[in-house]
Amino acid sequence: MLKRTLHELPEHLYPADEWRLVERGYSPRYCSRAETFFALANGYVGVRGTYDEGRPSTAPGTYVNGFHETWPIVHAEEAYGFARFGQTIVKVPDATILRLLVDDEPLSVPEARLHGYARVLDMRAGTLTREMSWSTPGGKHVELRSRRVVSLEHRHVLAVEYEVTMRGHAAPVVLRSQVLNLEDLSVEEASERPPDPRAGRDLADRVLNPVVVAHEGGRILLGYRTTNSGMTLGVGVDHVISTANPHTTDVAADGDRGEVVLTVDAQPGVPIRVTKFVTYQTSRGAPPEELTERCSRTLDRSVRDGFGALLDGQRAHLDRFWDRADVRVSQGAGTARLQQAVRWNLFQLAQATWRAEGAGVPAKGLTGNGYEGHYFWDIEVYLLPFLAYTQPRIARNLLRFRHSMLPAARERARELGQRGALFAWRTIDGREASAYYAAGTAQYHLNADIAFAIRRYVHARGDTGFLLEAGAEVLVETARMWADLGFHGDDGAFHIHGVTGPDEYTTVVNDNTYTNLMARLNLRYAAETMRALERERPAEHAALAAELGLHPGELDEWERAADAMHVPFDEERGIHPQDAHFLEREVWDLDATPPERFPLLLHHHPLEIYRRQVIKQADIVLAMYLVGDEFTAAHKRADFEYYDRLTTGDSSLSACVQSIIAAEVGDERRALDYFRFALMIDLGDVAGNVSDGVHIAAAGGVWQALVCGFGGVRDHDGELTFDPRLPRAWSSLAYSLRYRARQLRVALGHDEERYLLEDGGPVEVTIRDERRRLVPGQPLVVRPPGR
Amino acid sequence: MLKRTLHELPEHLYPADEWRLVERGYSPRYCSRAETFFALANGYVGVRGTYDEGRPSTAPGTYVNGFHETWPIVHAEEAYGFARFGQTIVKVPDATILRLLVDDEPLSVPEARLHGYARVLDMRAGTLTREMSWSTPGGKHVELRSRRVVSLEHRHVLAVEYEVTMRGHAAPVVLRSQVLNLEDLSVEEASERPPDPRAGRDLADRVLNPVVVAHEGGRILLGYRTTNSGMTLGVGVDHVISTANPHTTDVAADGDRGEVVLTVDAQPGVPIRVTKFVTYQTSRGAPPEELTERCSRTLDRSVRDGFGALLDGQRAHLDRFWDRADVRVSQGAGTARLQQAVRWNLFQLAQATWRAEGAGVPAKGLTGNGYEGHYFWDIEVYLLPFLAYTQPRIARNLLRFRHSMLPAARERARELGQRGALFAWRTIDGREASAYYAAGTAQYHLNADIAFAIRRYVHARGDTGFLLEAGAEVLVETARMWADLGFHGDDGAFHIHGVTGPDEYTTVVNDNTYTNLMARLNLRYAAETMRALERERPAEHAALAAELGLHPGELDEWERAADAMHVPFDEERGIHPQDAHFLEREVWDLDATPPERFPLLLHHHPLEIYRRQVIKQADIVLAMYLVGDEFTAAHKRADFEYYDRLTTGDSSLSACVQSIIAAEVGDERRALDYFRFALMIDLGDVAGNVSDGVHIAAAGGVWQALVCGFGGVRDHDGELTFDPRLPRAWSSLAYSLRYRARQLRVALGHDEERYLLEDGGPVEVTIRDERRRLVPGQPLVVRPPGR
Repeated sequence: MLKRTLHELPEHLYPADEWRLVERGYSPRYCSRAETFFALANGYVGVRGTYDEGRPSTAPGTYVNGFHETWPIVHAEEAYGFARFGQTIVKVPDATILRLLVDDEPLSVPEARLHGYARVLDMRAGTLTREMSWSTPGGKHVELRSRRVVSLEHRHVLAVEYEVTMRGHAAPVVLRSQVLNLEDLSVEEASERPPDPRAGRDLADRVLNPVVVAHEGGRILLGYRTTNSGMTLGVGVDHVISTANPHTTDVAADGDRGEVVLTVDAQPGVPIRVTKFVTYQTSRGAPPEELTERCSRTLDRSVRDGFGALLDGQRAHLDRFWDRADVRVSQGAGTARLQQAVRWNLFQLAQATWRAEGAGVPAKGLTGNGYEGHYFWDIEVYLLPFLAYTQPRIARNLLRFRHSMLPAARERARELGQRGALFAWRTIDGREASAYYAAGTAQYHLNADIAFAIRRYVHARGDTGFLLEAGAEVLVETARMWADLGFHGDDGAFHIHGVTGPDEYTTVVNDNTYTNLMARLNLRYAAETMRALERERPAEHAALAAELGLHPGELDEWERAADAMHVPFDEERGIHPQDAHFLEREVWDLDATPPERFPLLLHHHPLEIYRRQVIKQADIVLAMYLVGDEFTAAHKRADFEYYDRLTTGDSSLSACVQSIIAAEVGDERRALDYFRFALMIDLGDVAGNVSDGVHIAAAGGVWQALVCGFGGVRDHDGELTFDPRLPRAWSSLAYSLRYRARQLRVALGHDEERYLLEDGGPVEVTIRDERRRLVPGQPLVVRPPGR
Repeated sequence: MLKRTLHELPEHLYPADEWRLVERGYSPRYCSRAETFFALANGYVGVRGTYDEGRPSTAPGTYVNGFHETWPIVHAEEAYGFARFGQTIVKVPDATILRLLVDDEPLSVPEARLHGYARVLDMRAGTLTREMSWSTPGGKHVELRSRRVVSLEHRHVLAVEYEVTMRGHAAPVVLRSQVLNLEDLSVEEASERPPDPRAGRDLADRVLNPVVVAHEGGRILLGYRTTNSGMTLGVGVDHVISTANPHTTDVAADGDRGEVVLTVDAQPGVPIRVTKFVTYQTSRGAPPEELTERCSRTLDRSVRDGFGALLDGQRAHLDRFWDRADVRVSQGAGTARLQQAVRWNLFQLAQATWRAEGAGVPAKGLTGNGYEGHYFWDIEVYLLPFLAYTQPRIARNLLRFRHSMLPAARERARELGQRGALFAWRTIDGREASAYYAAGTAQYHLNADIAFAIRRYVHARGDTGFLLEAGAEVLVETARMWADLGFHGDDGAFHIHGVTGPDEYTTVVNDNTYTNLMARLNLRYAAETMRALERERPAEHAALAAELGLHPGELDEWERAADAMHVPFDEERGIHPQDAHFLEREVWDLDATPPERFPLLLHHHPLEIYRRQVIKQADIVLAMYLVGDEFTAAHKRADFEYYDRLTTGDSSLSACVQSIIAAEVGDERRALDYFRFALMIDLGDVAGNVSDGVHIAAAGGVWQALVCGFGGVRDHDGELTFDPRLPRAWSSLAYSLRYRARQLRVALGHDEERYLLEDGGPVEVTIRDERRRLVPGQPLVVRPPGR
């Protein structure tokens, strides 16, 4: 049930354009959203879409993935095992700022008389450009162009090209190019907002302590160490100034600010161009001096290669991205708008993941500090499918990163009284940072989500080598946790009690159906994997088993638990209860709840919510998608009907999944409604908090809704099946899948569907329950059944 | 099942004495416990049992009931409706200190060479006395006597008499009598302890801001205002110095300290006696100047009447107390020890409640800052029975105080989405201060506990006037909350979901049996009361109904809910599940849990505890006691057997109830074991935290275990029934009951039982299911049935 308001992008402000998001004028109302819309990132570093001049800005910020401060969590009432170490992503000094003064008049976008304003996020070029003319208060005309890029090729590099040309008159022009530690600004600003558990946290004490302050020519180098986490940071900026006008430069720096001041005697028609190269280096503890040295070397190379090379590399990387990731839809007159929104979501996936080597993907990518830069299950359930089928290299990196958290997860399992490993619900450094266990630590399902993602990745890529390298260890430790957590009840069934499923509007329940089904998969896949390794790689298996202290009976124990796993089912209603006792609860009257009371979590005490049948986000419905082979078609229809009317969609993770299952059960109207909702979660600011950053998981959900929902792709047994549901309102849908080192192209129309294997050996897939063989270069054309 | 270690009082330190607790020597091991054992209080002000000289002291403190500071609760993760205002009882400046120096050598008890040491809490006199001789390092002999009293007659007054006599040699003697603001000392000290949710809180910022600082002669007056709560405090001390030795005095004061220094040229055999009168006044906001003036007037009177008058008044009040409250037991050679412990517990009840006018009773009385001086359900369930049957005036005061919290309770119900009123689980000022809702706000049963206490009080005293004054309003608002909170399910039954019962080892459950039974009583009694008032006091009823906006159908609605109330019962096992799904949980293996892992809450994450069958404190077993008429004898036996083996007794509220029901079901051994446990909770430091103060509720439980457990008293229909179970090991048990303005005396022996009505009209009681009539002055002698 859709209870939230969807706002479309205003056409006069953001005209439809398939490859670009274009802002046609400054609007105070859209200013804070635009900082997120126009954010640039590469998975390592991200910059919010602020104005070059630094103002106006509602929440400026540059973030480096994983660069965080820690702090002791103080609980209002302590208890054993509560999370102790908070972790918060830190704003690194902002190096994008170039303040412009003409005739000593500063350019300030909100007040300035501007003509021909256009800010453009070009999703093929990977740039943010701005063009406009400014009539100064003194009546002079200034032409301005800027271009910003966060390099997908060079993960430590971003750059801004800023060009000013006087028209008609000469004038003194001053450009103040800054690098600015913003941390003092944020506390004040944040305190004006009401408390919102979804927002980021502002750290009370100083985080960045300057260790290195240096400058030479147009280059500034700053090095920092954080107060608590001991992480280190190097920032470097360099400037290439290109103008035929007479000019001077001046440079200064201290621990909080570096500045290059360019003073120009600007002649009409003679452009002033400043190219600013910026680089960040972070480390868990290397000396800041070492990091600023690395910055220096990066700057040497960047200046040498120039801005043009950056742009070329950017385009090349995005060509590779779009080749595999693009999804094309057509919908008559609405195509450009629809395609724009689809591409904006997919582009966010590139920005969040492309260079996330050695790190995870924060819930907001690197576009804001919402959720404090933490890693959640979003990675495994909402991003992994996209990555496994478009960029398996990145999928592997992320799973390897998860594996690196195993020591912390083992320690956490001990604290919770369990064997094996229990991954932290939200974390940067691997330790649990969720201060509210009922909707945090209790989400044990994360363990199974990770196992699920490993299985999907291994199957999609055929990368069994990953199992030996890292996957099997995670599978064994997570399976151990489940086997220990649950118990065989008097009824002989295996029960898992006291856990929270994906839906956070009921917490700490018994036998959450999603959790039990996913745990079963985890247990079985772990056993199956270890048995296969024993057969196929006996030496490595023996070494691994010894290292893990795997005793002979464990695999049997897991399989017994999996086979006996209790899956709640209500015979009378013919549906799966969300948990053992969900259906006994009173039903929340969503029809009687006024729109301003959503999201419920901001207007009702948890106790009021938890005791009722009301759903924050897809839970059973998610299980129907991820482990759909556990449900009959009839049950899917019944379950979807039942749960849909209870679902608020208060979580951004919900609509995409609802859409997928609505499509599967043949409810095209709801599938499209939910899809539009998912698609516009950020661009339509559905949750009212897009200024905190992009909902990256929802963007991953958009790809899944397109490819798995309307596109009908599943892979329950590790093999591809297709059961497309092209909406009547759409004329076509085309997507690509990377599958076991082959490239598949699928183009769906109402009259025919084309399945093309571009390369590699032949492969078998299932199309609408029919086994089909795809041969490279020979498109398989299928006539969809009549409706 | 008893899993905690019980330590008896060491005979050499605390010899058995029926009316006195005597400490025969200083022991560093017992020093912090002794500060609680020897605390004095009167329900308004309390002083811990520190040494007169102020050292050594592990946790000095003087507390005034309800005098508290507030502070914003910061939740590690915020949510709507979480408690916002913390409240913490504040240490008022300590005025007990008299530092002694002889030959410039300070007396410090741990290091001093002492002879004939005796500290005596005299429970009939209501004094703490100390006698000893001191051989100074210089070889001089000093005789010391002191007496401390916290007046039960004059609630604002406490006093210390301190006498020093040189023996054999003359010496310069200096006595520094101080009043000292301790708040700076506490933070440091507390930080060394591991976090314990049961402990008190130390406030980080300065709380007491001096407004008045004055002295004249031997009198010092200090006035304060707290930083956040705006409460005000006046402290006054005055000194009467009596000695034939040449002496001088000097006085000084600032905002943190006042001091009278007495310098004496002490001759051998010539005593120096200082009597120090102390008074405290507190207010929610009256100017401190006004309070110090009141202090001055109180001091005038106290000095005029003298220390002797205080002692006489103290004895007279305690005679009244013991006449109604004393319980006498005999057990052969062990009698003195047993009787001493019983009296010490009863004496704590006097100290906690006697002058608590206009306030509640903190969980630790005024003997420590454990639980932050908060009021809990302890008052209604653990103290009210004792008070209703021994000091109904105090019972009425406490219920009237609860009624004064109704506005805050209405507001809290709104926040939780409910009609009516919801009383705060822990509070001083009426607002919810429980920062952990699962074991706090979720304990909705408090509402019913209050209704239960009103009913018991009204029945025991026959005080229906109280209903019109305050009781009915509380009954109506609490009944409204239940009617709104629960719902009629598909099965037609009325269900209450998402609440926590008394047992905090399972939280936020459906249909907690205790809660449902108590809510039923609340709903019925509210309806019954309003119908009776309508019949008997139509005018007042109409006014009340109008004020409360009571609509005609409400009473029917309550009765329908009560009649349809779901009471979980497991046919197969023949027992009542603690909640709808309790029996589905895995059983915690208490036998396999090592003793050092108790209490479980300090060694296991809540999730680990909540998902299992393991009990912190009596829940079903408490229901069997409070609403025993809802259970058959067979069910009581079965339920007790089942739950006893799951019960850790990690709460001090458990053993007394387990003892009562063990006695009822005829398990004498366990009844006695649990009773000893309840009896020694503080004296035996079972929970290891007696230094935080006396467990007042447990002391109330000791009375109930004696009178209702072994004494067999119940009053389910408001009338007294007796079904005594005198243990074989005891030769007799005697207790008194105040009942509808009459005094009953019951003396139980194995050969005969005597029931004596001292005064008033005849009354009917039930003894072992037989209806008997008691006539004043004519003891009814009953021969107990053979065993």
